[in-house]
Amino acid sequence: MYIVISKDDKSRARRGRLITPHGTIETPVFMNVATCAAIKGGASAEDLREVKCQTMLSNTYHLHLRPGDDLIHRLGGLHKFTGWSGPILTDSGGFQVFSLASLRKIKEEGVYFSSHIDGKRIFMGPEESMRIQSHLGSTIAMAFDECIENPAEYHYTKRSCDRTTRWLLRCKEELKRLSGLDDTVNPQQMLFGINQGSTYEDLRINHMKQIRELDLDGYAIGGLAVGEETEEMYNTIDVVEPFMPEDKPRYLMGVGTPQNIVECVHRGIDFFDCVMPSRNARHGNLFTWNGKMNLLNEKYKEDLRPIDENCGCPACRNHSRAYIRHLIKAKEALGMRLAVLHNLYFYNELMQKIRDALDAGYYESFYQKYRVVLGERNPD
Amino acid sequence: MYIVISKDDKSRARRGRLITPHGTIETPVFMNVATCAAIKGGASAEDLREVKCQTMLSNTYHLHLRPGDDLIHRLGGLHKFTGWSGPILTDSGGFQVFSLASLRKIKEEGVYFSSHIDGKRIFMGPEESMRIQSHLGSTIAMAFDECIENPAEYHYTKRSCDRTTRWLLRCKEELKRLSGLDDTVNPQQMLFGINQGSTYEDLRINHMKQIRELDLDGYAIGGLAVGEETEEMYNTIDVVEPFMPEDKPRYLMGVGTPQNIVECVHRGIDFFDCVMPSRNARHGNLFTWNGKMNLLNEKYKEDLRPIDENCGCPACRNHSRAYIRHLIKAKEALGMRLAVLHNLYFYNELMQKIRDALDAGYYESFYQKYRVVLGERNPD
Repeated sequence: MYIVISKDDKSRARRGRLITPHGTIETPVFMNVATCAAIKGGASAEDLREVKCQTMLSNTYHLHLRPGDDLIHRLGGLHKFTGWSGPILTDSGGFQVFSLASLRKIKEEGVYFSSHIDGKRIFMGPEESMRIQSHLGSTIAMAFDECIENPAEYHYTKRSCDRTTRWLLRCKEELKRLSGLDDTVNPQQMLFGINQGSTYEDLRINHMKQIRELDLDGYAIGGLAVGEETEEMYNTIDVVEPFMPEDKPRYLMGVGTPQNIVECVHRGIDFFDCVMPSRNARHGNLFTWNGKMNLLNEKYKEDLRPIDENCGCPACRNHSRAYIRHLIKAKEALGMRLAVLHNLYFYNELMQKIRDALDAGYYESFYQKYRVVLGERNPD
Repeated sequence: MYIVISKDDKSRARRGRLITPHGTIETPVFMNVATCAAIKGGASAEDLREVKCQTMLSNTYHLHLRPGDDLIHRLGGLHKFTGWSGPILTDSGGFQVFSLASLRKIKEEGVYFSSHIDGKRIFMGPEESMRIQSHLGSTIAMAFDECIENPAEYHYTKRSCDRTTRWLLRCKEELKRLSGLDDTVNPQQMLFGINQGSTYEDLRINHMKQIRELDLDGYAIGGLAVGEETEEMYNTIDVVEPFMPEDKPRYLMGVGTPQNIVECVHRGIDFFDCVMPSRNARHGNLFTWNGKMNLLNEKYKEDLRPIDENCGCPACRNHSRAYIRHLIKAKEALGMRLAVLHNLYFYNELMQKIRDALDAGYYESFYQKYRVVLGERNPD
């Protein structure tokens, strides 16, 4: 059940709460990506609690290939497998089939493709994706869709959207069936539908109108941050958002920088996810309340300050810039780990501050300040 | 100051206590190797406390090359740099100069060699090694020696031992000088000498007789576990141990398996270190109280038990064999990290159990049981 607690009066921003069998998600929220049932860089379920994660995101495609969703099902589902007891969202596999797999063939029934691990031929359609996600027992399952790279051809996009709608209907039916089975790990699994339509305003709106009729547990905007300009992304959200149900959570998939998040909360988005915190950490790119910094920069060589004086993460509480910089340069796993923990904490804390600002009624001034600061370079 | 608390009446095993400015080390002890100022696999100073580490070991050669001991000195020494406040032992660099560096030239003054990182020409002699270790501010500095691979030629070994003794004298002099300087991080830095002599009994004994005259803070046996048979190693310890001062700690460098440790405590050794816990973890080789196991074995695929039911480490408290196996196979950093934490905890716990057995007077039965069990394959 989703409750919109309050709405900002100067923007489309909303403060909400999704109540799930695995706990309540306070929104706006950033989900922490654990593609293969673990955060890149070595963060565990305990670490996720430490960095104030609310929701973990895992991947249907990856877990289907390795270790296999049937194995995870036999072991009691993803919660038991990973030790993370809070909400889990599973991606449908759609995006990965289109971005990672090779020799892809799209048919009405689904997609034939080759595994990126061993080249094995695999078929995945709406029913398969639902079965895998039911096996995983996630809190929220995502519908199986076709994710098209931008720019995309108009007529192809239109046909693809229609197919994605038909696939969504099949997802809904199949998940209903699976929820009734005896060995279902999570019979109350929720389903979010995904809006597509590239950057074509009419297609986006039309598709959203189609899928909102299905009364799903939530609605995602997919197919953004895949090649278009940032302004086109913002524009697409502005165009489609008024057609999203007010009383359902809204999830912008795969976005983005801290700045993107502040901008998209402003535009009415409740859920986010992105690999950016861990991917950037690997290269020493860290986020702070004074803007971005690259820790590999020579000027941090003897800097005994924490990454961010105002951060309470395990890296900032215990270690200096100089030490973490040394570790990343020496390719020590600990360097990557501390950088990832910092960035994840920063994202989760950003969402907390956004929620605080919405609760206390100063979101507009928060937005005006941080939409600028978060995009700048940390001058320290 | 070293205190021998008790001696076992059926073996050479000793229970002792080394009091240092950074805390007391209860012996027998296993030191946890953090070569580049971090444990391989991503364990931090906080993790070391969690896995019950007493002493961290870092490396003079590695830290001299990167990030530079002068940098660490300016930042206040290794304790401040890493966040580890307990005792730290630094290896002298001797072993690494002989095992990692290339284009080596040994002269009376020291060794000329090329860095394994960038090929840069470097000179290190006794004074340089002491200066670096003084910069690092470790609790215990190791003397700069020549470590010869086994088997070694008799006459070369004899000449090398004599040079190592001359180098040791220079180490002692230089460390004394450094301790008096104004900007010394740890003026009470201890010095351990290293016994060499390959597997030649007369050379070992003769060399030990020479160096024990110097009244150092501790004595190490070096140049073992570098090519000889295990029985030759045990024999060498049996031969040289009676000539080691009774009232000083005895450190067997770079050893070994849990079985080796039990055998060598039995032979009178107090200090150990080895990269085995982390190196083995990387390949799924784990130590348990029922013997060794390889977690990548197919039979653990759906095993929901912890690695060891009797282990209190963070991996065993929170995660299953099936999950950690999946992570290692998927090359997720978390898999390596959990495996390393388990193995380190196991080693530290092994030493705790050895100390308990010595304290309570049942070391002989402990030894008889575990010298066998620890070498076996875990039947579970």
